[in-house]
Amino acid sequence: MTDITLKLNADPYLLSALREDVTSEDVTTDAIMPENRMGQVDLIAKEDGVLCGIDIFERVFTLLDANTRFSLFAKEGGEIHKGEKIAEVTGDIKTLLVGERTALNYLQRMSGIATMTRQMVKLLDGSKTKLLDTRKTTPNMRLFEKYAVKVGGATNHRYNLTDGVLIKDNHIGAAGSITKAVQLAKDYAPFVRKIEVETETIDQVKEALEAGADIIMLDNMSHDTMKEAIALIGDKAETEISGNVTEDNVEQIKDLGADYVSSGALTHSAPILDLSLKNLHPID
Amino acid sequence: MTDITLKLNADPYLLSALREDVTSEDVTTDAIMPENRMGQVDLIAKEDGVLCGIDIFERVFTLLDANTRFSLFAKEGGEIHKGEKIAEVTGDIKTLLVGERTALNYLQRMSGIATMTRQMVKLLDGSKTKLLDTRKTTPNMRLFEKYAVKVGGATNHRYNLTDGVLIKDNHIGAAGSITKAVQLAKDYAPFVRKIEVETETIDQVKEALEAGADIIMLDNMSHDTMKEAIALIGDKAETEISGNVTEDNVEQIKDLGADYVSSGALTHSAPILDLSLKNLHPID
Amino acid sequence: MTDITLKLNADPYLLSALREDVTSEDVTTDAIMPENRMGQVDLIAKEDGVLCGIDIFERVFTLLDANTRFSLFAKEGGEIHKGEKIAEVTGDIKTLLVGERTALNYLQRMSGIATMTRQMVKLLDGSKTKLLDTRKTTPNMRLFEKYAVKVGGATNHRYNLTDGVLIKDNHIGAAGSITKAVQLAKDYAPFVRKIEVETETIDQVKEALEAGADIIMLDNMSHDTMKEAIALIGDKAETEISGNVTEDNVEQIKDLGADYVSSGALTHSAPILDLSLKNLHPID
Amino acid sequence: MTDITLKLNADPYLLSALREDVTSEDVTTDAIMPENRMGQVDLIAKEDGVLCGIDIFERVFTLLDANTRFSLFAKEGGEIHKGEKIAEVTGDIKTLLVGERTALNYLQRMSGIATMTRQMVKLLDGSKTKLLDTRKTTPNMRLFEKYAVKVGGATNHRYNLTDGVLIKDNHIGAAGSITKAVQLAKDYAPFVRKIEVETETIDQVKEALEAGADIIMLDNMSHDTMKEAIALIGDKAETEISGNVTEDNVEQIKDLGADYVSSGALTHSAPILDLSLKNLHPID
Amino acid sequence: MTDITLKLNADPYLLSALREDVTSEDVTTDAIMPENRMGQVDLIAKEDGVLCGIDIFERVFTLLDANTRFSLFAKEGGEIHKGEKIAEVTGDIKTLLVGERTALNYLQRMSGIATMTRQMVKLLDGSKTKLLDTRKTTPNMRLFEKYAVKVGGATNHRYNLTDGVLIKDNHIGAAGSITKAVQLAKDYAPFVRKIEVETETIDQVKEALEAGADIIMLDNMSHDTMKEAIALIGDKAETEISGNVTEDNVEQIKDLGADYVSSGALTHSAPILDLSLKNLHPID
Amino acid sequence: MTDITLKLNADPYLLSALREDVTSEDVTTDAIMPENRMGQVDLIAKEDGVLCGIDIFERVFTLLDANTRFSLFAKEGGEIHKGEKIAEVTGDIKTLLVGERTALNYLQRMSGIATMTRQMVKLLDGSKTKLLDTRKTTPNMRLFEKYAVKVGGATNHRYNLTDGVLIKDNHIGAAGSITKAVQLAKDYAPFVRKIEVETETIDQVKEALEAGADIIMLDNMSHDTMKEAIALIGDKAETEISGNVTEDNVEQIKDLGADYVSSGALTHSAPILDLSLKNLHPID
Repeated sequence: MTDITLKLNADPYLLSALREDVTSEDVTTDAIMPENRMGQVDLIAKEDGVLCGIDIFERVFTLLDANTRFSLFAKEGGEIHKGEKIAEVTGDIKTLLVGERTALNYLQRMSGIATMTRQMVKLLDGSKTKLLDTRKTTPNMRLFEKYAVKVGGATNHRYNLTDGVLIKDNHIGAAGSITKAVQLAKDYAPFVRKIEVETETIDQVKEALEAGADIIMLDNMSHDTMKEAIALIGDKAETEISGNVTEDNVEQIKDLGADYVSSGALTHSAPILDLSLKNLHPID
Repeated sequence: MTDITLKLNADPYLLSALREDVTSEDVTTDAIMPENRMGQVDLIAKEDGVLCGIDIFERVFTLLDANTRFSLFAKEGGEIHKGEKIAEVTGDIKTLLVGERTALNYLQRMSGIATMTRQMVKLLDGSKTKLLDTRKTTPNMRLFEKYAVKVGGATNHRYNLTDGVLIKDNHIGAAGSITKAVQLAKDYAPFVRKIEVETETIDQVKEALEAGADIIMLDNMSHDTMKEAIALIGDKAETEISGNVTEDNVEQIKDLGADYVSSGALTHSAPILDLSLKNLHPID
Repeated sequence: MTDITLKLNADPYLLSALREDVTSEDVTTDAIMPENRMGQVDLIAKEDGVLCGIDIFERVFTLLDANTRFSLFAKEGGEIHKGEKIAEVTGDIKTLLVGERTALNYLQRMSGIATMTRQMVKLLDGSKTKLLDTRKTTPNMRLFEKYAVKVGGATNHRYNLTDGVLIKDNHIGAAGSITKAVQLAKDYAPFVRKIEVETETIDQVKEALEAGADIIMLDNMSHDTMKEAIALIGDKAETEISGNVTEDNVEQIKDLGADYVSSGALTHSAPILDLSLKNLHPID
Repeated sequence: MTDITLKLNADPYLLSALREDVTSEDVTTDAIMPENRMGQVDLIAKEDGVLCGIDIFERVFTLLDANTRFSLFAKEGGEIHKGEKIAEVTGDIKTLLVGERTALNYLQRMSGIATMTRQMVKLLDGSKTKLLDTRKTTPNMRLFEKYAVKVGGATNHRYNLTDGVLIKDNHIGAAGSITKAVQLAKDYAPFVRKIEVETETIDQVKEALEAGADIIMLDNMSHDTMKEAIALIGDKAETEISGNVTEDNVEQIKDLGADYVSSGALTHSAPILDLSLKNLHPID
Repeated sequence: MTDITLKLNADPYLLSALREDVTSEDVTTDAIMPENRMGQVDLIAKEDGVLCGIDIFERVFTLLDANTRFSLFAKEGGEIHKGEKIAEVTGDIKTLLVGERTALNYLQRMSGIATMTRQMVKLLDGSKTKLLDTRKTTPNMRLFEKYAVKVGGATNHRYNLTDGVLIKDNHIGAAGSITKAVQLAKDYAPFVRKIEVETETIDQVKEALEAGADIIMLDNMSHDTMKEAIALIGDKAETEISGNVTEDNVEQIKDLGADYVSSGALTHSAPILDLSLKNLHPID
Repeated sequence: MTDITLKLNADPYLLSALREDVTSEDVTTDAIMPENRMGQVDLIAKEDGVLCGIDIFERVFTLLDANTRFSLFAKEGGEIHKGEKIAEVTGDIKTLLVGERTALNYLQRMSGIATMTRQMVKLLDGSKTKLLDTRKTTPNMRLFEKYAVKVGGATNHRYNLTDGVLIKDNHIGAAGSITKAVQLAKDYAPFVRKIEVETETIDQVKEALEAGADIIMLDNMSHDTMKEAIALIGDKAETEISGNVTEDNVEQIKDLGADYVSSGALTHSAPILDLSLKNLHPID
């Protein structure tokens, strides 16, 4: 994550998360450590996976104390292994203790998403189909979760409702037809947006194509129907496969030659990657 | 969730989540539906589980339009089944489309947590041991995730670093001994806080007891050690078992007679419960 | 502007603007009118132009007092004439006096932009070229100014740096070539974004075309060069003319057959449209 | 602008403006420049005018990266000429690209206002009459626009509704008479506020004088009536001329000997002063 | 306090105060009262004094629940007596319990200030000298405390550093002399501000007069020196006596004929007025 | 106050307080001191008392200018005497002038509370009874006032409604009995909270004891009743005496052997401790 995104876009979330964990003070730490004292602690991987969010992890501590220092032994997006020491954090012991949980809560979740993403990307190896995320993210975590998907090796779909046009069945019903809906969107939306249309039948695919859709989503279609649709579309639009795609079934669509396949599970159901701060000790 | 907590504590998060999804407008919806029009949509369960967060789901829509109406066919904390219609939402179609994703992102995550919690609580059936959550929550989701744990049938541990004292190994090292750490905490912390001490050996358990700890955490101990510790403690303090407790292994501690067992997985790794808004149609 | 955009996206700006005008109270009004009293005031056009921002105008007053009422005699985007009564506002006199300046400051500026936009759109009549805005907006006014451009009849360019890709000379320099820059953007950006490249020579146009740019900007080119470029591009990409385009010179590009022409002056230098609240009188 | 006003009062607006332009990241820049790299860019004047807002310009960049450096070749409030190099900005290229538009949007607007103000001040040369601004400012820009008026050489009227008393016709109607309105204001308002009364006739001027107004505004009066009013007032109050005063007509009131003349056009209709960032190049 | 000031300026402080008292929920109330139930509670005076802040008191509850109802038996600024029932509050019992402390904390402090102010105003009875407050207010309470001073019967001095000019010894030293300081202030400050100068000697009074100060503060002068100063000043400026003025000594300056006397104690050291919510009972 | 609490929890209040005092600029200072100039000023005690809030005092200035420097001659929590020089502050003169009032408003109030607390703690000398504060704090000042109570030598009661359980008469009424209320609270509240019950009679004390209350509050009981209650309770619960306890009467409860006595006056009615910034002078 760039320094600009960190400061401009991530900081308000990080400060809010820290304040969620500290209403007025850390009573335990403030009781036990009345004086400032320098310490060091190790960041340890407790499972294999992909490291993601190390800038966020660091920023949580430097927001508390700009003098906190980090030695990194792994890199963002790199594969890490159980037992591996990822980093050493050096700073005021109070800062290390207060920031620990919030820093890990971000790092573990982001690494969990990057890990699942990397696995699904590997399952698609050998096909031209790229993996996409969705808007099924945890509230107030989209910035971090979409970034983790990218670090994991997949491509981001639209960020939110403002920056991409996706015409779903409900929009089609309201407009009267795919043709009308696409026309209305072309007239209205900022001209740099591509127009995507969700389709469920071959007839809809045909209508979307003729209406000039830039991207056609094949939603919950059978394997055969998707095959027919993709042949029909050819180079005239990009294609996205959608509908309960997970690690268990993603390989089934490899042969179809779609441009994209999207999976909500990446952000809504990836378990965390277990990481831990260990061996805190004073250094003098 | 009470109306007061919703307004006072949840609203800022909900508005932030809605703004995360709408930078300036929903371009698709605004293109396709230039006029206001009333519509209705069904909330459908796509798997079995425990419903949680229905007030949050509703609030997302009423923050967009106070006139949105809801008919509920299931209740908060109740068990729901695949295919069941949970609710009907009636309101302006633009509101239904813009609020859909944010409302579901909350509802699915909270129901996922309540579902996993209910399952683990059932596994502890027949023992006196109560299930606890931890501070391993998703950033800016603690209010919602701790509530989901309670709806699932478990008990909340401390909310954050301010409102509970938990003396860990690092604090003990800094203070010099458990005895000193407990004394410092008793002198410093607001007197309504109980003092909990994390222990890893029988010697530490003994020292914590003598120091007057209110709660003793048995962290990553063997089954036999825990047995000895709990016998030793008797009624002199409450006991909490901790350390990678999940659905797979929670039953192993049932016979120990501990007061509590805590599980981070409840909030950091529960998959969502799949729920969906279907059949949006205009009503006139 | 939809009710959702008003509440979710505009309200924070409107409240901030009202607080800019009222640190603690309106001392004049509070001194002179110690009691609440109902009144009515007329919104009058003092020049000819296009009305824009009437929802914002109303919202400023209803944020102060939800019981304020409005009778409208003109419509958003309609042409209004000097002396015409646009609306009657009825409500508590304190509310009318406190909200007056902020409501007019928005309405006058938005109508000024819509008026200039409408004029430039008319000058392009008979050509296929559509008018675009830019990011040269007044800070913290983009939501309102881009909307005014649309009401005036033009099309919005990207909203901000996040939701559109525009590769400028500086990016090209950094990447090494247009070809590399386009490739990097295609790999990185969310796939729903079109890729636009700024070009200054025919050679750059050719390179951009081959690299697969979706939109090619012709920046500060001579009329002849633009002609050649547009012929070269044909249907292979969309074209946008850019560079100090104003009311005085926009007609010169009509014959070129470009898809778009953008003008920063629409938002950075449109004078306000003069509107006034007159004839405030108590009603009992 | 002092460093204190920048930090305390301007920063929240600047951050809001930057976030208006960056929802999550600058996708173009982040695609093209994966690494940090130092660069330099020139700030160039593209028309003649008065430079204003250079501290704001700098602050936009230093909010993104505190290490950004500036070499200034002109000074705040100084006259600059077409083609002149105003400054060099040195820093991380990402920072230069992301901050460019927001920094220029402020600088251009503030310089535009200072330029128009300076011109009107010159037109009043040789008279005792000082130029004033009004509250007809762009929403959420008052801090910057009132400052630009002062840099341009004019005097600020009240900042907002809280810090100055201005009794208008509506207040007079509500109070019953000028005499009563002035008395109510003197009793109510903080005693450090001067009391200004808007008058439209000689009779009102007389009544305001007798009521003890500190400042009498002559609103939309004929030249002869203003002459009579000013003679009548003498040293007993300060005088302010008001009503559609622009560059085209401000000289007509020079001979009247009024203390002040106010012009809304300064802030609501000054075109920007064209300034540009050019020649961005890496430095290593 | 007007409805506009309440919503626009007070609400952010009230919400912040409520959130200071409720991190996530009122655990006691939520445990004991799982259902909504209507109740009623009495607001009782526990000492004699001046009632102030009743709008704020009500607003705290209506922010939690807009349906809360109030029957008032005393009025803002009125004298109340020990044991008197001031109001009945009717609403959801949870709302009554959660809002109680915050509502009373405001009401008690504001009434305490109004009570002390009323007493000092009475001590000045029979003189022309009006009582003023200062900027020695409790942080984030100025809006409420300055209002309470006015309700108590005194006059407000400037609200803050922006809206009044007060040249103190430090400013005089920096400018070189009173004469220069007044001139600089007249040139710089918005012209609606009066210029006040703090003086400690007769020579300073003379210089301030000649420099054209609008208000002259006599700071910590002896009774005789103040007498001489006020005679000297006559009608040429307003006069303000300042320096540790309290209820115990304010009468000593009554004979001097000063226009104003200011007291910091009004806002920094007034004890609260004891008020209590009693007899909460369900109503069905 | 730790650096973490300062940054994370205090800063938002301090910035809000500074902005309460500066809407746009300090007009006096900005007029008189157009250039930056270094200066020094002394912090002087004007009465005897306990110093509290020195970190807050410093932070107000360093938020304005990080280069402000402090030499301290007294320490937090130490006793200071009239005329004593507490500190020297060195920095830009503008910063010293703008920050002065806000810094002193915090320091004076916090020192006033610490001073009264220290006095009451001394009055309890020789007894085992510890002094407690309450939630009767000034809105938006709880963080600072509870800290001052601790610095004064007393113990904090619960911070707010979320982090402590206190069952009052109203809760008992709603639940049906003390027994039920305690049971409901034990089932509902996070398990680290102690349960406190307010009692007014011996019968209630007995019921609370049997219900398993951790702390029993004796509210407004006679001396004899408290004696009986405390004997009855013995070691089975902690005891807190409550009800209009002030400096004048706190000694009367010394012989009772209660664990705690709480006093609202500490935070709601302590007068400030008079401190002043004197002798500002330029240093070059």
